[in-house]
Amino acid sequence: MTDTGVKGAVTHDILVEIEHEIQRIIQERSARASTYGPHFFELWELAAQYVSGGKLLRPRLLIGVFDALMSELAGEPDARQTALELSAAIEILHFSFLLHDDVIDQDLLRRGKPNLIGHLAGGCDDGGAASSRMHWARSSGILVGDLMLTIAHQVFARARIAEDQRLRILDLLDATVTETVAGEYCDVSLAEGCITPDLGLVLDTTRMKTAAYTFELPLRVAAIIAGADQRMEQLLGSVGRHLGLAFQLQDDLLSAFGLSENHGKDQFSDFRERKETVLIAYARMTQSWPTFEQLLGADEFTDDSGRVIQQLLVGCGAREFIESMIKDQIRAALTMLSDDGGAIPAPVSRFILTFVDALEGRGV
Amino acid sequence: MTDTGVKGAVTHDILVEIEHEIQRIIQERSARASTYGPHFFELWELAAQYVSGGKLLRPRLLIGVFDALMSELAGEPDARQTALELSAAIEILHFSFLLHDDVIDQDLLRRGKPNLIGHLAGGCDDGGAASSRMHWARSSGILVGDLMLTIAHQVFARARIAEDQRLRILDLLDATVTETVAGEYCDVSLAEGCITPDLGLVLDTTRMKTAAYTFELPLRVAAIIAGADQRMEQLLGSVGRHLGLAFQLQDDLLSAFGLSENHGKDQFSDFRERKETVLIAYARMTQSWPTFEQLLGADEFTDDSGRVIQQLLVGCGAREFIESMIKDQIRAALTMLSDDGGAIPAPVSRFILTFVDALEGRGV
Repeated sequence: MTDTGVKGAVTHDILVEIEHEIQRIIQERSARASTYGPHFFELWELAAQYVSGGKLLRPRLLIGVFDALMSELAGEPDARQTALELSAAIEILHFSFLLHDDVIDQDLLRRGKPNLIGHLAGGCDDGGAASSRMHWARSSGILVGDLMLTIAHQVFARARIAEDQRLRILDLLDATVTETVAGEYCDVSLAEGCITPDLGLVLDTTRMKTAAYTFELPLRVAAIIAGADQRMEQLLGSVGRHLGLAFQLQDDLLSAFGLSENHGKDQFSDFRERKETVLIAYARMTQSWPTFEQLLGADEFTDDSGRVIQQLLVGCGAREFIESMIKDQIRAALTMLSDDGGAIPAPVSRFILTFVDALEGRGV
Repeated sequence: MTDTGVKGAVTHDILVEIEHEIQRIIQERSARASTYGPHFFELWELAAQYVSGGKLLRPRLLIGVFDALMSELAGEPDARQTALELSAAIEILHFSFLLHDDVIDQDLLRRGKPNLIGHLAGGCDDGGAASSRMHWARSSGILVGDLMLTIAHQVFARARIAEDQRLRILDLLDATVTETVAGEYCDVSLAEGCITPDLGLVLDTTRMKTAAYTFELPLRVAAIIAGADQRMEQLLGSVGRHLGLAFQLQDDLLSAFGLSENHGKDQFSDFRERKETVLIAYARMTQSWPTFEQLLGADEFTDDSGRVIQQLLVGCGAREFIESMIKDQIRAALTMLSDDGGAIPAPVSRFILTFVDALEGRGV
């Protein structure tokens, strides 16, 4: 998934703080990495460069909510440094997921530029994965992903907080990785035709693959570190699940209808790869499906086919359905933020609302 | 790498204890895994089955050394349960490395039977990785590897030991994963011709890829949990590095000269995949190299070519060189075990010596 165009809701200073923290965590391990030879150290430095390439959606959400909570609650004084470390760890976790996702989806681009694997492949053609350099580039993607997953766990494991808090964030991380992996597994199983697609299953996959780690994890970690009670943690978690699903559905819409420059992937790549998005799952239930099947199943997929599929997705009601689902999910989150007898402090609600506004303005 | 034929040195009861602990750690998370749908849960249960397939070399080493240390030192009374948990976590870590290694090496067999990926691929032919089922099986291998890496970290992070001990084992795990990944990266870079092979580099790769996590990690964790001082931990770590290199070199010999039933891989698979083993790196420096190149570079690699390469490896002195290196490494470890002014307690030395004897009898 891409983090396109989410602006506002945090200051420039927080972006700099997060960037700095990510690099500090990586650099702390660089001296040791350099002992494993210059060849490996080159890969390490490339990883350090690529981990910082994102919009920092997840850490910004965590720090924003944490700061807002702290203006109301009496957390530990050095809790903010811990929040910052964990927010950086979540970005590193995100990078790990992206890398393994890119290996699985055989993607070489992200946000319109070569991703780490594309960089390593050096513009060589895939040649049906037979090319030796491509195999090396993908293998490197697997291995850097393992390193990043390890670093994320290490930061969570070493958080200098009370034992019960530490166990709670470790539980969350454990559950989040499992849910994300489950989502990714269902995704690849759908793509390869190993399970029969239906709308409910595709929705579950969408939810598992992204909502948990993108929204629920940062919001709940912020609550735990700020010293909020379990009720508020769970409430913020639910808000996160709704927003996460909205975000992922919007991402699917962007991929299907947005311009390549906006979402940063090959135009029509979701169609070309026959991704089982919610749009496609909806279309499958309509009378237009035979036409979709013909276009998606063709040996060569042209940009013209892509444009016809876009029109068909509008015509069969799939686009409207997804847009309406996104609105429903956001409305559910907003209701929780405003209605719950003041359980969520006003500064937190305000921050999340600004964040959602920025999300909605991604340009679909 | 394979753990073939290492017998003795631990009782049957310890094997049962370790098996039970591995399954307990997985089962503890099964209820949650089942909430992500029946399709993912099938994969989860398959992983639980495959994680127990090994000879348990690493956990047996850890528990054996821990028990021997405890007969001499005054560790915490519930330290043994912690040692058992960590030994199981190291086996789970090993399974994670195997899975990603199998994806990278495109192996479908381990110990002569289909590995998890081979099982999922269901005997389908590779077809140049173009086959959709093979891609799904390999993607699943990446994802299960991520789950297992996560579980290993979680167990280390939650160890109920003093804070300074916990940080020491976390440091060790961090360093070990980085070293193993560095070794794997050099391995795939050598295999794909991205770095120029020379004997020193190939030896470093061999050492990094296996010695750290197979011998050094279990020995040092045993020392830390038993409450040994840092000097003994480091000494046992050095013993582990020597034994680890010996073990991996012996594994390469087994692959090159052993029978398929013994080492559990396709016969000649190292040659067929043009693996940059120390044997091959040695051969590269000899006058016979042009003949090797011709045989290894042929479009179709036959069993006859395999047998000729075996003879050439003997003739050019490569086999003798490796056998002599193995002896040197084992001798270095034995010297540390016996000479160091009694730093390593006699029961620990005795256990490791029995273990090494069993290793040496792997049938090369």
